[in-house]
Amino acid sequence: MSGNPVWIDVLPAEKVIPVLKDKVVLHAGPPISWERMCGPLKGAIAGAIVFEKWAPDLATATEMAAGGGVTFHPNHHFGAVGPMTGITTRSMPVMVVENRTFKNRSFCTLNEGLGKVMRFGGNDQEVLNRLAWMRDVLGPDLGSAVRAAGGIELKGFIGRGLSMGDEMHQRNVACTSLILRAIAPWLARTAKDTNRLAEVLASIGANDQFFLNVAMAMGKAIMDPVKGIEGSSVVTAMCRNGTDFGIRVSATGDQWFVAPVEMPEGLYFAGYGPADANPDMGDSAIVETIGVGGFAMAASPAVAGFVGAGSASSALAFTRTMSQIVVGENPQWTIPALDFAGVPTGIDIRLVADTGIAPVINTGIAHKEAGVGQVGAGVVRAPLDCFIHAARALSNKLGVQ
Amino acid sequence: MSGNPVWIDVLPAEKVIPVLKDKVVLHAGPPISWERMCGPLKGAIAGAIVFEKWAPDLATATEMAAGGGVTFHPNHHFGAVGPMTGITTRSMPVMVVENRTFKNRSFCTLNEGLGKVMRFGGNDQEVLNRLAWMRDVLGPDLGSAVRAAGGIELKGFIGRGLSMGDEMHQRNVACTSLILRAIAPWLARTAKDTNRLAEVLASIGANDQFFLNVAMAMGKAIMDPVKGIEGSSVVTAMCRNGTDFGIRVSATGDQWFVAPVEMPEGLYFAGYGPADANPDMGDSAIVETIGVGGFAMAASPAVAGFVGAGSASSALAFTRTMSQIVVGENPQWTIPALDFAGVPTGIDIRLVADTGIAPVINTGIAHKEAGVGQVGAGVVRAPLDCFIHAARALSNKLGVQ
Repeated sequence: MSGNPVWIDVLPAEKVIPVLKDKVVLHAGPPISWERMCGPLKGAIAGAIVFEKWAPDLATATEMAAGGGVTFHPNHHFGAVGPMTGITTRSMPVMVVENRTFKNRSFCTLNEGLGKVMRFGGNDQEVLNRLAWMRDVLGPDLGSAVRAAGGIELKGFIGRGLSMGDEMHQRNVACTSLILRAIAPWLARTAKDTNRLAEVLASIGANDQFFLNVAMAMGKAIMDPVKGIEGSSVVTAMCRNGTDFGIRVSATGDQWFVAPVEMPEGLYFAGYGPADANPDMGDSAIVETIGVGGFAMAASPAVAGFVGAGSASSALAFTRTMSQIVVGENPQWTIPALDFAGVPTGIDIRLVADTGIAPVINTGIAHKEAGVGQVGAGVVRAPLDCFIHAARALSNKLGVQ
Repeated sequence: MSGNPVWIDVLPAEKVIPVLKDKVVLHAGPPISWERMCGPLKGAIAGAIVFEKWAPDLATATEMAAGGGVTFHPNHHFGAVGPMTGITTRSMPVMVVENRTFKNRSFCTLNEGLGKVMRFGGNDQEVLNRLAWMRDVLGPDLGSAVRAAGGIELKGFIGRGLSMGDEMHQRNVACTSLILRAIAPWLARTAKDTNRLAEVLASIGANDQFFLNVAMAMGKAIMDPVKGIEGSSVVTAMCRNGTDFGIRVSATGDQWFVAPVEMPEGLYFAGYGPADANPDMGDSAIVETIGVGGFAMAASPAVAGFVGAGSASSALAFTRTMSQIVVGENPQWTIPALDFAGVPTGIDIRLVADTGIAPVINTGIAHKEAGVGQVGAGVVRAPLDCFIHAARALSNKLGVQ
């Protein structure tokens, strides 16, 4: 709660994550081999390989990935996070968020917007063209603006967003609008030409989820300093790669506790249904570890409808239930509809194991096949087994029964 | 409800209100003579006279105003509205909103932001310098952007704003942010230079109440076509000049029904109290005639606190009570906290007279002396006498007892 995350830059990923200078692909979730990866993750990786020009086409890229021609690591191993497939490769621009209280930094790619996008497994020319524009225009220009501003403090946006119906996972319309207001003058002051500036402003303006990736980088920057506190049973990361769900816990440091990932339950776009859905994906569940997303559902009756979680009263119930598995409430981030109670913060694996209440996550739903994209949005539970494994490991480490 | 208000331009007031080519000052509220005007209105008028260079200083300007050297008219007589003192003179930029369904147009000056401002009776060099910048930079640049955009449809912003905690009178943070997102790319496309663009973006970015004046112009554009419907007892305008409160009613056309204006009850900024307050002022109560402001208090628990109207449950009660004096609910503008009920729309003088329930208005509070400015925010009731006078006049006109 004492963290002070500040968005300080946007840079090509290889500048801040040196391992990316090689043919390395970072992905969402805990570690996984090519063979066990789901369709959209494989599709996004093939797209990223073509994007980086390591292969001329998707077929060759897929062969290359399957044959060990690229190395895979989780984003989380390098202070990074990414939504859904979470692909990060060397030339992609990443936001740099510094937690000024603890001096650590975290990274997240920029949000691609809606439609065909790599985070949902998209990999065609439209997807790659957009990524090239983000690399060549959006990333550098946002970087210049944020540097000129001397950094953008992020915590206040969450507080305002919660009073404006955002939960910062599946709804970011308020925070996107507020941060654009803050950055727009700096974008103008550092602009090279006005047409290019108009493109950047229109891109953010058309993307209600722009702030999701900001919130994710912020979440990572807030939770990383919680790592390695002796005896602490607080969850420092939750993430999914479409096959496995993984968590990390403070006292057990970098160790992953994994279990098969669940299927989201939610609402599908026209023409799609549960049979099309891929199991849960993405590092975005980092936002639930800091008390927003599904944990702040009460702030966002509109999102409760969008993810199929029911009415405004159901939304209140989600937040109240999550209060039973956390170490506290965050008085800086309050929910008007709960008489300004703070968001439930700091998931405690002991409370999850004791109560059997699994953390709730608001999520997008990807098609299970590569290249199709988003087919819905819903709610998913973190698998209880992750927390039980973690509680056993922590017990063993502490020598308690 | 079928109106379609579109912000189509920003132009110097004299271009769209020809009477302003002369030494004419438009003000908020119903007609009033210089002698009966309150302190802040006199102060603002003196400031406007200096701003227009009709007099070299405030003392000469005040003499000129008192001696008949300028002519006064209500904004409402020329399709215009203005917040608080509501001063409109020839060189001030006004937003032009066209109701595309009914082809009428309305006008409102641009919001000056916080601090010392003419709408609260401010008239010193800081106030006049800002007005000059608005005349020379903000107005022309917004005009170019809005024209290039082919107009900005406004109704959707209200719908989104209501789901984000705005009531569009004392809270406009969501709508200001959303409309800036919509306009920013057009500001960039039409920008002459990036430093000037940065000034414009920073000015709107720093002013949570930017959208208030947009909402007012929209309200006027929506209500003007309601004028002159035979037998209709719907209120087409409510406004105050700091001395009198005035209303107009559909069937009685341009006739004003006036009564002494009330004192707002609310919260004061540090160092001020009720003894400093001027009675209620401004044309901004036009927004209550279209169902927002105090009528939509339930959408905005934060504003209920800001204006001293109590808790979130009090906010719900205000909206529920207003439902008793209107002809319907607007299904296009709904309030999540009331299970998406539409805002109470179309004040009926017969229902006000029958129930004794006076319309509630969220308002800023001005210091009673010229030149001081805003000292608080609160809630005020429209005086019942206006509605009783109007009901009698309508009865006489219709030949009913």
